[in-house]
Amino acid sequence: MLAELKRLMVGQPLATEPLAHERLSKRIALAVFSSDALSSVAYATEAILIALMAAQSGALGYATPISVGIALLLITVAFSYRQTIIAYPQGGGTYIVSRENLGVTPSLVAASALLIDYVLTVAVSMSAAVAAITSAVHVLEPYRVELAIGLISLVTLANLRGLKESGRIFAVPTYLFIGSMFALIGVGLVKLMLGGGSVPAAPVPAIPYVPEEFQELSFFLLLRAFAAGCTALTGIEAIADGVPAFQKPESRNASITLVIMAVILCTMFLGTTVLANAYHIIPDGSLEPETANSQLARMIFGNNSLFYYVLQVATMLILVLASNTAFADFPRLSYFLAQDRFLPRQFAQRGDRLVFSNGVVALGIFAAILVIAFGAREQSLLHLYAVGVFLSFTLSQFGMVQRWRKMRTPGWRRNAAINSIGALVTGTVLVVIASTKFLEGAWAVLMLIPIMVILLRSIHHHYTAVARQLSLADAPPPSAVRRHTAVVLISGVHRGVVPALQYALSIAPDNVTAVYVDMDAEVTAKLKEKWKRWGSGVPLTVLSSPYRSLLRPLMQFIDEIDAQYDDDVLTIVLPEFIPSKWWQHLLHNQTALLIKAALLFSKGKIVTSVPYHLED
Amino acid sequence: MLAELKRLMVGQPLATEPLAHERLSKRIALAVFSSDALSSVAYATEAILIALMAAQSGALGYATPISVGIALLLITVAFSYRQTIIAYPQGGGTYIVSRENLGVTPSLVAASALLIDYVLTVAVSMSAAVAAITSAVHVLEPYRVELAIGLISLVTLANLRGLKESGRIFAVPTYLFIGSMFALIGVGLVKLMLGGGSVPAAPVPAIPYVPEEFQELSFFLLLRAFAAGCTALTGIEAIADGVPAFQKPESRNASITLVIMAVILCTMFLGTTVLANAYHIIPDGSLEPETANSQLARMIFGNNSLFYYVLQVATMLILVLASNTAFADFPRLSYFLAQDRFLPRQFAQRGDRLVFSNGVVALGIFAAILVIAFGAREQSLLHLYAVGVFLSFTLSQFGMVQRWRKMRTPGWRRNAAINSIGALVTGTVLVVIASTKFLEGAWAVLMLIPIMVILLRSIHHHYTAVARQLSLADAPPPSAVRRHTAVVLISGVHRGVVPALQYALSIAPDNVTAVYVDMDAEVTAKLKEKWKRWGSGVPLTVLSSPYRSLLRPLMQFIDEIDAQYDDDVLTIVLPEFIPSKWWQHLLHNQTALLIKAALLFSKGKIVTSVPYHLED
Repeated sequence: MLAELKRLMVGQPLATEPLAHERLSKRIALAVFSSDALSSVAYATEAILIALMAAQSGALGYATPISVGIALLLITVAFSYRQTIIAYPQGGGTYIVSRENLGVTPSLVAASALLIDYVLTVAVSMSAAVAAITSAVHVLEPYRVELAIGLISLVTLANLRGLKESGRIFAVPTYLFIGSMFALIGVGLVKLMLGGGSVPAAPVPAIPYVPEEFQELSFFLLLRAFAAGCTALTGIEAIADGVPAFQKPESRNASITLVIMAVILCTMFLGTTVLANAYHIIPDGSLEPETANSQLARMIFGNNSLFYYVLQVATMLILVLASNTAFADFPRLSYFLAQDRFLPRQFAQRGDRLVFSNGVVALGIFAAILVIAFGAREQSLLHLYAVGVFLSFTLSQFGMVQRWRKMRTPGWRRNAAINSIGALVTGTVLVVIASTKFLEGAWAVLMLIPIMVILLRSIHHHYTAVARQLSLADAPPPSAVRRHTAVVLISGVHRGVVPALQYALSIAPDNVTAVYVDMDAEVTAKLKEKWKRWGSGVPLTVLSSPYRSLLRPLMQFIDEIDAQYDDDVLTIVLPEFIPSKWWQHLLHNQTALLIKAALLFSKGKIVTSVPYHLED
Repeated sequence: MLAELKRLMVGQPLATEPLAHERLSKRIALAVFSSDALSSVAYATEAILIALMAAQSGALGYATPISVGIALLLITVAFSYRQTIIAYPQGGGTYIVSRENLGVTPSLVAASALLIDYVLTVAVSMSAAVAAITSAVHVLEPYRVELAIGLISLVTLANLRGLKESGRIFAVPTYLFIGSMFALIGVGLVKLMLGGGSVPAAPVPAIPYVPEEFQELSFFLLLRAFAAGCTALTGIEAIADGVPAFQKPESRNASITLVIMAVILCTMFLGTTVLANAYHIIPDGSLEPETANSQLARMIFGNNSLFYYVLQVATMLILVLASNTAFADFPRLSYFLAQDRFLPRQFAQRGDRLVFSNGVVALGIFAAILVIAFGAREQSLLHLYAVGVFLSFTLSQFGMVQRWRKMRTPGWRRNAAINSIGALVTGTVLVVIASTKFLEGAWAVLMLIPIMVILLRSIHHHYTAVARQLSLADAPPPSAVRRHTAVVLISGVHRGVVPALQYALSIAPDNVTAVYVDMDAEVTAKLKEKWKRWGSGVPLTVLSSPYRSLLRPLMQFIDEIDAQYDDDVLTIVLPEFIPSKWWQHLLHNQTALLIKAALLFSKGKIVTSVPYHLED
């Protein structure tokens, strides 16, 4: 029944065959790989405004210069990644780059940071997608968490079915989003120039309570706002990871696409921030908050205009796509880690539909937990987000520097210099983010990463220890079994016991003992009587159990029997009667199961189940 | 670790030894067996008042005549049970009486009603115990449910440890309760006579909304109030169940104790109701309700007097004791039912501390569920309570009638007449309760009982079917195993495989096959190479699995091998490597477990695990 439900939800199993990949044109690739990066425009500006609000609303004007700084940072990072694209035409994910150039531990740090990031990508994007909708349709506001969980379940299921990475599906929402954002910015700027000073100031909402030390605009506060805006850069590395998917020449096409994406992202981000300042947008701290973008769009397009709704829907769609990229990346990274024996090997198995189902499910569950814990508030989740992203940026750039120094290919000095600047800048930003956002959640990520590294390492340690112990490299030649001893455990004399006894006699003809644990003197006496007739001459040992424990006397007896000979193999034979329906198992003591579990951990005993099947 | 926690909570196991029972004097027996009945005084009067409130508060005066009716009913029932005591000196629980005299189905109806009642006894008593406390200490009101669950857990744990039914422990709270109730009634009556009309009327609370059809005092309403008050009779059968615990002559002592209890119960119940009317007590419908008894005690003893607090504590204690009797009765009845094969046999096992632990835990869980569902409001739970009680009263009395008619002992006509009256009266009350309380919850109990009877019957059917199939009565003589076939399932060639192969060769020297499921052509090629050296000459079959399923091709192959010979025994040998720590299992595929489960349900295959133990 469960199997049927799975078929219905996930679909029929697919046969293993060479996984074909379509090669993507620049136009399609932009859509496929940039949804994560571009969608950050949906929340980054608001994050800056919220950070500045901690002073007074007059400070909001600083958003524009801060955004310019972030745009410069973006250009630096994009340039650094162009290098990676050229160096790794086979795809230069951070884990691979740092493993090759920095060693195991840095690569595990990067991997941990990335795994955390993918979970956060899903949680943030889905929460922001819901925010785009609830901003437009306020009545849905109380169902934020339910809506976000619904979206996560939907995308999880789609990925379990094995969503083909069909470029066209991605292209529509991405270009719709880019188009409507450009329309917003264009119309906004024109209205601004025509209308002059006639822009109505938004009503100033009640400013929430702010601790006193933040009241004045300080340098620290500006850094916090900058750190908040750095979430605009998340997802920018996606093109570098996906170079092999491009049409030939892959590296060239990928690096052109990266530049185009960086330009679009800069334009949208700067445009939004400038307009938010010009239109006096103030982040909505009410119980039914509206996103800053939604406020802006209402002002520019008009309150209930079609354009407004198109933009909100496009925002939601691109955010769902953004989280979908994490659903491709997380299972792939877990697969790499499982292949390298740092994660349980279950993550390396393809499911019925050829996807790494365990990774997909794990990501869905973790993201859902975060969404519930944070009430699907993307702005609260953002505090955790940027740390891991910039940690992996820095490691990736630093890995590239090491690579240039090792390879010494033509122009390596120039290349190393570019990546050094990248590493330096992203490293500095990492420190800024970690220190300014520490209390708001960055501490959790910074604590989790070393824990995860230790965990990954101990998993690896276990697997290598197992492989060493199982290796046949210097194993002794096989030695035949010389002598059999068999013990038959019985809970009564019934039809199920007879075949078990015969089986034991057939493998150890002159060395079988039957054992019974006495619980009730009367019952035992009857059993002994029956044994005379049905015992096939096998000696019966009755163990007493003053504390009514079955396992203790049994295990003790078995150990005694085991100690009798040195050169024998001891087989424990368990007669089991099997009800015909699974629920009927509940009506019988699960002693056989308990005994099997106990014997499993007791060395050197072979356990044989002789089933007797019941009907009805 | 889990085992240690259990030791700490439950205590060391106790040895099986003849269970010694202390014989109880009348004075102690009254305390032991009457807590359930006497404690009903804590809520029965209030239940009548609440039912009458549905009209207008002037109707509350009808409480006194209704209580007189209930007292008469109580006397009738007590007389009927005196008969049971004389007829069943070995203890005449309703289940036993109805099984002996009415047949299987009526006894199962009685058993179901009783099981439901025991659960309700715990839920009602614990909720009322909490109400006694929160009435005195209002700040605890928001933690009603938590407190009730805490009390249930405490009593469950105490019973798992095997609370000795030490009479003295019971005597203190019971006599404290009787003493303080008599003091309350005495002082109340004296004040009433001295003070004349000076009793201050309690402030009339806002009467909650009441459906129109109930607004006027109708005959139906009076019946409802009567039905509500019948909860005063719950627990009255306890003495009849426990006759063997009395000192000799058991029956005589038990019947005297029953009469004394009935007198005390009548006095306390009538006294409380009369005073509640005289002092104009109105049930408290507020959000932080105070029990009627607590209101009355405040008026009579004074608001913060020591006497008031003593009464509340005594009320709480006797209610906890009342629920404790259910913790003795429920596991005992489940034991009887399991012995008769109507419940899973797990209920017939004594745990480490000689108690029927499964019954104790089941009762605790069901009661906790009810408490949570009803927010620990005893007055809401009461609507469900009396139906089952009167159903079992009626069956028990009716069983006695049948018994007299069969036995025809001297005076059987008189005895049969007394029990007939009892059966008639309790049966009529049952109909009254079921009809007047139907919509408020009685329907649930009336629906649950037949469902439980069907369940009990189908469990019984299963057990008898199993016994029949396992019986050796006309079994063929044992036939020796003639020929062995063995299949070794391998997941690779490693040290764990070698002993499994040798074992298979030793039991079926010329009929062993190894099987491997191909998942990756490259890996399979390597494996075949290794097999040449380590395969000990055993032929290796490689199965292809286009859908990456392990089980399907394996089971198909095993079925084919099984079909080869008719006279052979097929053994499936599973090499298993066992990590040294349990959590390391998570790092390995649980394929062995899956395969064992699949083979268990596939007829006639013997499964042998050959373990290979890993270190560290």
